[in-house]
Amino acid sequence: MRDEFRADLNEIGRTLVIMADAVRSAMRRATLALLTADRTEAEEVVDRDAEIDALYRIVEDKVYDVVARQAPVASDLRVVLTALHVGADLERMGDLADHVARAALRRHPAATVPPELVDVFSRMGEVADHLAGKIAKALSESDAVAAAQLDRDDDAMDDLHRQLFKGLLGTDWPHGVEAAVDVALLGRFYERYADHAVNVGRRVVFLVTGESLPSA
Amino acid sequence: MRDEFRADLNEIGRTLVIMADAVRSAMRRATLALLTADRTEAEEVVDRDAEIDALYRIVEDKVYDVVARQAPVASDLRVVLTALHVGADLERMGDLADHVARAALRRHPAATVPPELVDVFSRMGEVADHLAGKIAKALSESDAVAAAQLDRDDDAMDDLHRQLFKGLLGTDWPHGVEAAVDVALLGRFYERYADHAVNVGRRVVFLVTGESLPSA
Repeated sequence: MRDEFRADLNEIGRTLVIMADAVRSAMRRATLALLTADRTEAEEVVDRDAEIDALYRIVEDKVYDVVARQAPVASDLRVVLTALHVGADLERMGDLADHVARAALRRHPAATVPPELVDVFSRMGEVADHLAGKIAKALSESDAVAAAQLDRDDDAMDDLHRQLFKGLLGTDWPHGVEAAVDVALLGRFYERYADHAVNVGRRVVFLVTGESLPSA
Repeated sequence: MRDEFRADLNEIGRTLVIMADAVRSAMRRATLALLTADRTEAEEVVDRDAEIDALYRIVEDKVYDVVARQAPVASDLRVVLTALHVGADLERMGDLADHVARAALRRHPAATVPPELVDVFSRMGEVADHLAGKIAKALSESDAVAAAQLDRDDDAMDDLHRQLFKGLLGTDWPHGVEAAVDVALLGRFYERYADHAVNVGRRVVFLVTGESLPSA
């Protein structure tokens, strides 16, 4: 791979790191807003989603510029276009943080999550934070090992999601249908956030090594 | 735009039409499976999702091949890369049809949708079918007008989604928490299917005209 092209890829990677940090911060604040019914935090997440969208457009522009300027050969082309997929997944993770924040706002000042599920959501928030942190690390240090681990780390989210549904669908749910619907949709937002993080991990392995992971 | 490049774009467009038809058929069958508790239809949708994923990989390969072979200039490059986004949205629409089919299977032979909501889901299925049909038409006839209309057609899905939640969160929901959670998640699957269709519509306008729609 030519030095100039590698420098361009690194530059795109740096923008993706900024995106990953923004997405991480958004979900951290959204979780805080959800669990403490903090209106200011929730509004901040909603307001700042446009910044994440704007970063995605910057990534797109940089990728188009590199492809047009460098005319990379087939394998290098695949690598640089991978950045588009990473950007798209990160953008979607930002949307999901926004959805969590909006769910918190919809019930404010009441709590959206019943007390006995605060712990599960708190842990879902931790796993989400861990996944986004690993993406930023993998991108900034070209660390394919960290990126490949995201696949395994997602299992923790799946376990929490199952635990959530067990609580929800037990015979003694006392909070009514509206709370159940909120909790089910929120659970899905965290699960999808983790799914996108796993996608990013697989793409980042390719971005930094040029090699694909075997299919899951 | 050069003739050869235009021919390549048309070829990619034909593969996207096949994908759009497959995705349309998947959601039609998934809705039928959901509303009639038809196990065979549901299993067919789940089994055939891999075909849609494979079509997406074919689109990706074709796009990479065209970019590497033709080295399109900046504006043409943007147009051809748009096909990647269209493919990704269609692939996700296929996943959502798969989710609907799996929801039907999970409760089989019981019905997943309570009788009074069959009509709403039936109409959501019709809107989904209409949207996917319009995508196929817009792609196969390079019809930017049809593509641009998807934005408006999505309003019908949003109305049905609101109606669904009104039924769900009324004071007299007699079907318990489990059915409520199923219905809420199913509603979201149809809504997301329509959102992706709108994304595709915006991209197809660009693919066939090289012009962006104003932001929504």
